[in-house]
Amino acid sequence: MSPRAIHNFSAGPAMLPKAVLERAQAELVDWQGRGISVMEMSHRGADFTAIAEKATNNLKELLDVPDGYSVLFLQGGATLQFSMAVLNLAKQDSIADYVVTGSWGRKAHAEARRFCEARIAALTQRPSEPIPDVSQWSISPEAAFVHYTPNETIDGVEFHDVPDIPPSIPLVADFSSSILSRPVDVSRFGLIYAGAQKNIGPAGLTVVIIRDDLLSEVRSGVPDLMTYRVHAASGSMKNTPPTFAWYLAGLVFEWLIEQGGLAAMAIRNQEKAERLYRALDQSDFYTAPVPSTCRSRMNVVFRLVDADLESTFLQEAEGAGLMALKGHRSVGGIRASLYNAMPLAGVEALVEFLGAFEARYG
Amino acid sequence: MSPRAIHNFSAGPAMLPKAVLERAQAELVDWQGRGISVMEMSHRGADFTAIAEKATNNLKELLDVPDGYSVLFLQGGATLQFSMAVLNLAKQDSIADYVVTGSWGRKAHAEARRFCEARIAALTQRPSEPIPDVSQWSISPEAAFVHYTPNETIDGVEFHDVPDIPPSIPLVADFSSSILSRPVDVSRFGLIYAGAQKNIGPAGLTVVIIRDDLLSEVRSGVPDLMTYRVHAASGSMKNTPPTFAWYLAGLVFEWLIEQGGLAAMAIRNQEKAERLYRALDQSDFYTAPVPSTCRSRMNVVFRLVDADLESTFLQEAEGAGLMALKGHRSVGGIRASLYNAMPLAGVEALVEFLGAFEARYG
Repeated sequence: MSPRAIHNFSAGPAMLPKAVLERAQAELVDWQGRGISVMEMSHRGADFTAIAEKATNNLKELLDVPDGYSVLFLQGGATLQFSMAVLNLAKQDSIADYVVTGSWGRKAHAEARRFCEARIAALTQRPSEPIPDVSQWSISPEAAFVHYTPNETIDGVEFHDVPDIPPSIPLVADFSSSILSRPVDVSRFGLIYAGAQKNIGPAGLTVVIIRDDLLSEVRSGVPDLMTYRVHAASGSMKNTPPTFAWYLAGLVFEWLIEQGGLAAMAIRNQEKAERLYRALDQSDFYTAPVPSTCRSRMNVVFRLVDADLESTFLQEAEGAGLMALKGHRSVGGIRASLYNAMPLAGVEALVEFLGAFEARYG
Repeated sequence: MSPRAIHNFSAGPAMLPKAVLERAQAELVDWQGRGISVMEMSHRGADFTAIAEKATNNLKELLDVPDGYSVLFLQGGATLQFSMAVLNLAKQDSIADYVVTGSWGRKAHAEARRFCEARIAALTQRPSEPIPDVSQWSISPEAAFVHYTPNETIDGVEFHDVPDIPPSIPLVADFSSSILSRPVDVSRFGLIYAGAQKNIGPAGLTVVIIRDDLLSEVRSGVPDLMTYRVHAASGSMKNTPPTFAWYLAGLVFEWLIEQGGLAAMAIRNQEKAERLYRALDQSDFYTAPVPSTCRSRMNVVFRLVDADLESTFLQEAEGAGLMALKGHRSVGGIRASLYNAMPLAGVEALVEFLGAFEARYG
């Protein structure tokens, strides 16, 4: 064990709950007396089938997924969903409307343009711009779907509410970095996807929640494993799924239920984010650029007013056990990711460090 | 720990070397004193980059991969490669020749037909048929590639040598269930792919080895993450890779090097398979249908002459700690998978059980 407390602010792959890792460790070589690891189980055997089913049901319970939706456990990350969503929901000549409020939305739109007429329905150019109200979005009545990114991991921009678009148009969301951070009304969505490596489990797993009427095939020439219908019909076992990642996600879901579910996580995440933003706002030494109406509770992005001090800041933070605070390579600055697994103590340690660093260099 | 010895003959996800699992367990919560798990590391950080690089280099060393090839660590399993290989190597109107010697080759061909003119260059209808000599294959001189399955996991059919096709045509192989089981001359191939969950590591990782001149894009409309060139250019980090699976694969590679590399594994695997086939051939109670010229050393498929006894056989085998011997649901019978991690002691225990069961019921 490391002698000092480590707080890992990585944006993803991110920290996992200690209790989950310890349980995974305890049963890594011998799962529940079977004499083998979960990794060594046939995905079609009774043991793994039970693990997979329990995880799926717990996720449905946590998110209160209504009837008429399928929950899939896939591979390829959210980035593969950029194309897969389009290939399954839109034809080559369909219009799809993208709301771009940061780097991931921009990437999703760029990939979509190769497979349909992907338009920009709303756009912010920088994190300091407020997200335009949905009344100002230019949504085409005939759009195959509207896509948005509820939380922009790199830019620290988050929708605080689900946008109210015409109910006839499926709403598609890349929920990678805020899924499970608070309750969400799944019935508002046609398709939700999320890479696991922030709030769900290890990298290499993608959760998809899709309304069953969207499980049709709208175009030909889509690979079997890029087709939602194929995965839904096979219980995500058309081919061998990432079994160990699925199992770990299941442990995270159990942990979330023990914590009181998403209502409890929402309160805790709110408290963590407020604590950090308050410290940043109270200081003239740091600056948090995102307007308060769309600040992310998962990824708190900030800068030192004296940008030359940032590398010293990061180095001394690491010395204090505060790891992976460097902003994304595309934007620089500082970023503290406060996913579900981050305890309040981690935020308190960071806030304390912010004050001490300012006292030394401010 | 389970009190009795367990031998896990699962065809995949399959058993892993005990030493690998124990090492993964020891460092699961705290990797090398960093205070965090490998699962919690940014894939772009120095620690994970070193893990990934070491795994890649060790795999290259084990397979003696020549210069001019790229080694990729992807997601989606071999099944996703069924389409990806075609989308990257063939145009819609290209001919691709498939050699089908079992269930997986058949599936690969069926998927390929959707994306090019995929022909059958050679075919066996059942495992008892010898693989036709390459001189009898009908290979089109203009074929974009020739695809075959060196080892058919379900049918227990294995090529004992790399087929000698015209060197101008890239040879493509689904090596999922026999990669790393013995040395192979990679320079004979244009593209090798393999799902990890048999001889490499946990499910959710796919290894691709591709000759660099094949990294071009031959058609448009292929998703970014389905493009080999994109993965090769980014060191398999176009998006977040399955980091923990990659790390575990690296532990398996280290273990293989410690065992003496693939030459040593080949001797051991040969001995294991011979031991089992000999026991089956010496008995009139069991029957191994595959001709000796193409018997798999990885998946030993056999039947009880009295098929009604098979469920009793499987039940009593489990009672003796011999797990997952049931043949694939599509073909029935018995299958013992003897991948690298299976020790000779496991085969000896199975051989002993074969004799004892025959003595009781024969």
